[in-house]
Amino acid sequence: MSLFNLHRKTLEKAISSVKEGVFFNHYPELHTDKIFNEQEISAGYEKFREHLNKKFESLRQAKPLSWEGDEESPFLMKPLNIKYPTFSVETLIKRAKDEFDRWRKIKLEERAGLLLESLKRVENKFHEIAFAQMHTTGMSYHVSFQMAGPHAAQRALNAIAMGYDSLLRFPETDLESISRDEFGIRLNKKWKAVPKGISLIISTPNFPLRDAVPGIYASLITGNPVIINPHASSILPIAIVISEIQKVFSENGYDPDICQIAIETKTEEFAKALADQPEVKLIDFKGNENMLVHLQSLHDKTIFSEKNSINSVILDSVDDLEFTIHNLVLSLALYSGQMNNTPQNFFIPENGIETREGKISYKQFILSFLEELDHLVNHAHSGPLVMGAIQDPQTPDNLAQLESKAQKVYYRASPYKHPDYPNARTLCPMVIELGPDQKEVFFKHYFGPVGLIIKTKDVNQSIMLANETARECGSLYCSAFTTHKNIKDKILDSLTVTNTPVTFNMVGNIYLEKGSAYDHFHLTGGNTASIASSSNLEFVLRRFTWVGYREPVYDE
Amino acid sequence: MSLFNLHRKTLEKAISSVKEGVFFNHYPELHTDKIFNEQEISAGYEKFREHLNKKFESLRQAKPLSWEGDEESPFLMKPLNIKYPTFSVETLIKRAKDEFDRWRKIKLEERAGLLLESLKRVENKFHEIAFAQMHTTGMSYHVSFQMAGPHAAQRALNAIAMGYDSLLRFPETDLESISRDEFGIRLNKKWKAVPKGISLIISTPNFPLRDAVPGIYASLITGNPVIINPHASSILPIAIVISEIQKVFSENGYDPDICQIAIETKTEEFAKALADQPEVKLIDFKGNENMLVHLQSLHDKTIFSEKNSINSVILDSVDDLEFTIHNLVLSLALYSGQMNNTPQNFFIPENGIETREGKISYKQFILSFLEELDHLVNHAHSGPLVMGAIQDPQTPDNLAQLESKAQKVYYRASPYKHPDYPNARTLCPMVIELGPDQKEVFFKHYFGPVGLIIKTKDVNQSIMLANETARECGSLYCSAFTTHKNIKDKILDSLTVTNTPVTFNMVGNIYLEKGSAYDHFHLTGGNTASIASSSNLEFVLRRFTWVGYREPVYDE
Repeated sequence: MSLFNLHRKTLEKAISSVKEGVFFNHYPELHTDKIFNEQEISAGYEKFREHLNKKFESLRQAKPLSWEGDEESPFLMKPLNIKYPTFSVETLIKRAKDEFDRWRKIKLEERAGLLLESLKRVENKFHEIAFAQMHTTGMSYHVSFQMAGPHAAQRALNAIAMGYDSLLRFPETDLESISRDEFGIRLNKKWKAVPKGISLIISTPNFPLRDAVPGIYASLITGNPVIINPHASSILPIAIVISEIQKVFSENGYDPDICQIAIETKTEEFAKALADQPEVKLIDFKGNENMLVHLQSLHDKTIFSEKNSINSVILDSVDDLEFTIHNLVLSLALYSGQMNNTPQNFFIPENGIETREGKISYKQFILSFLEELDHLVNHAHSGPLVMGAIQDPQTPDNLAQLESKAQKVYYRASPYKHPDYPNARTLCPMVIELGPDQKEVFFKHYFGPVGLIIKTKDVNQSIMLANETARECGSLYCSAFTTHKNIKDKILDSLTVTNTPVTFNMVGNIYLEKGSAYDHFHLTGGNTASIASSSNLEFVLRRFTWVGYREPVYDE
Repeated sequence: MSLFNLHRKTLEKAISSVKEGVFFNHYPELHTDKIFNEQEISAGYEKFREHLNKKFESLRQAKPLSWEGDEESPFLMKPLNIKYPTFSVETLIKRAKDEFDRWRKIKLEERAGLLLESLKRVENKFHEIAFAQMHTTGMSYHVSFQMAGPHAAQRALNAIAMGYDSLLRFPETDLESISRDEFGIRLNKKWKAVPKGISLIISTPNFPLRDAVPGIYASLITGNPVIINPHASSILPIAIVISEIQKVFSENGYDPDICQIAIETKTEEFAKALADQPEVKLIDFKGNENMLVHLQSLHDKTIFSEKNSINSVILDSVDDLEFTIHNLVLSLALYSGQMNNTPQNFFIPENGIETREGKISYKQFILSFLEELDHLVNHAHSGPLVMGAIQDPQTPDNLAQLESKAQKVYYRASPYKHPDYPNARTLCPMVIELGPDQKEVFFKHYFGPVGLIIKTKDVNQSIMLANETARECGSLYCSAFTTHKNIKDKILDSLTVTNTPVTFNMVGNIYLEKGSAYDHFHLTGGNTASIASSSNLEFVLRRFTWVGYREPVYDE
């Protein structure tokens, strides 16, 4: 059975789901059973441990320049001491160029079969990948599993499905449409889907896989060879996945260089040098403003980017106060605020919040919020599970500076004690109050666990400021709490025009960013937070072009 | 009957055709009968004459700043003396902003009905528009009719069809998909197609309508208000179309400012000032490199652009020499080379060309080509019909400078005598020979009637140079002549990677660019010639985003 036929059903289900906007979960059972399977967890941990203190030899790129790597576990505060093969920019580009001419000529079904098979192999390594994610990013084990395992794989599958379906839009070479010209000459017309060139994926320190795999698989399915440049602090999760892809290529007679890893531990100049190459036509990038400005200055390249953005919470009225606060605290604390969809700005009216049991004052709301936060931070089991560790050594200093801008400091970003990892670099969320006029403070994005409470005059001011945040700084999403239809409509309309998705009245254990796993509409591509949407078809369409051929035919 | 139902059948046919890549001609009969209807031509001419020497009062934008206009007919060499209303950048942006909040809320069917109705009105004015096109651009009457009439309208219809269909991809508000979360909470999800903002269309001197209407209709159908800035030399064709659109809006209770014209006769600084406005989110632009560089420096805007590019002809072997040469001469001379898809570089091997009747030498081929060209230029009827007049007063000087670079001058770009317009600014095509090493000359685009014969070592060098032209300078298409399958395959592959469409062995009266009217795959968006393809769905998809809303629902 061909690889394509082996995975055909999965592909067909994924296609019908991306077409209708109802993303199905190919990996749902993993959320419940598999993730807690002690035996598989142990086996995964052993696999992870086997990588430590040695060369990572599973990649199949020939003749490395050197072996390098200085990843460090934010939990152990020790180097992983894994060395990866490195290659010069010239070697990477030359190999990708050579593969471009082969890969683009391979039949779509064959490409799809290889990619779906690689995803299947990755699925068998979810536990190993979870530990790799944990000990590079500081994410707790269970969150790591979700993000780097099923969420990342589902996004990859969606990208394959969208690409596959889009490439079938026009008949490629066999079917020919013939139109009779007014002069009586008939034209044979053919359309060919032509990939754009080398695809460069620049990955992130915090979500090496979830942010990178949609681009990797979208580029590969549409015929573009890929070079992936992981962040120096988070190489291992990507190296595991890329080595699975390369293995599938090798086993089936293709060159592993179709999908290369490009490692450089020292500097972001390496990523820039790769991006500057004229043969690199596609760039997927998530990260800082400086790099983005550089990339946007390059012409004749198609760029899919996401940058740090500021997510707002609008509080007006709630049904159940306790459930609401539980959800807000969880969203703020999850992975210590190091998610691109963590809420940062909480707009709370000075007159307080309506609840089912009557109005509570601004002060009372803050107190309840802090109480719940304190409960989580001090909960020996849940605290570490939710918060994990801090990836970037700079984060504690950055937050300390922010404290001086506060009108009130409600909660300090101090380290908490991790029960399993006494050396872990940790921080509990900082909560401070700002006035509605302190835009120079809250119109900035802070990386790490930061909740800025902005005390507004009323909900109208809150809405206005959330709208302005999205327009000026970019928002991935907004979370709003209201039980009034007219206010809900106003929020919807006001955030709609900024292309910001809104989540209403989310309660309980649903992390605010949860929905983004499967139907990641959180990247609308419509405000400065992102100029790419991995759910919009342009995410695959812009990786190839339709090129037409015409030729007259004559009647016999 | 609603406007939508009135035009529903047309829309449905257009949708099924753009989906399958087989563009149907909604206006096919116009090519044959209507275009030659003397009575309609006279009526159209009268309508055109009525515009001369007065204010253009049919636009419905209120309170103009002033009335301006200095268009000049390249045929009459006299000012048209039509004055158009002008508005400040502030007024235009303010009105568009106000309309944005209304237009985006109008139901898709209603938007589609209004736009289809406006196209129907435009169709009734094709003859008037043809004269407007002729006396602003210098295009002959019959070519003007085709380009500004049916070709432009078909592109507009295709844009409406693609936009309409794309907006139905996901259920907007009524249908809700519900997914059960692992914690047992169900989520209501809704998707909304949200337009990006104000759409600015910057139009061209030579193809004011054909280049502009796809963007105008694509932006309008997807909910974005439009500001269109015509080139100061070619306002009238656009003013006629925009006034029809505005009339349909007014008659149906909508504000004409949904689609505004922005006129400034003096400077391109006005277009830049409009483009720089933060509310302008979409820019459609065709034109010069300087302006494009400026537009690309603007962030957070979606740009659809086309720039001057260089189209190659590869000559290897032909079936019928006479028919081939007839086609080449026609393609070079059509509208005096002022089309963006005119061939400029003719790669001819020094060893000559194979034909059905045996090999002919390089020299003999050139002689036959020049003979046919001379015949056309001196043909009292066909010559003017094909060549028309020269739009830009600078063109004669520019070409004179080019002559000094030639190794041989075969044919001079001298004026020809137009039988109907003795004062017309005319030029017959210049034909000169260059060596294959004179890349600094033939890797430049020359506006106007220029055929550069590049004498190559063999067809392989021709292919290499055509490939390099497309990669370095951008090509809209390539025209190739070969009767050998292996060479055809080589050309296909070599041009494919540059995303350049190829036309093989085109003979007779089919203009090389002909196919671009209905299935305008000539804009692949894949090389520097264009970063937009009006046939690719991204042309409409990037004008709006899908924004999601989520909310938990509880079982009763």
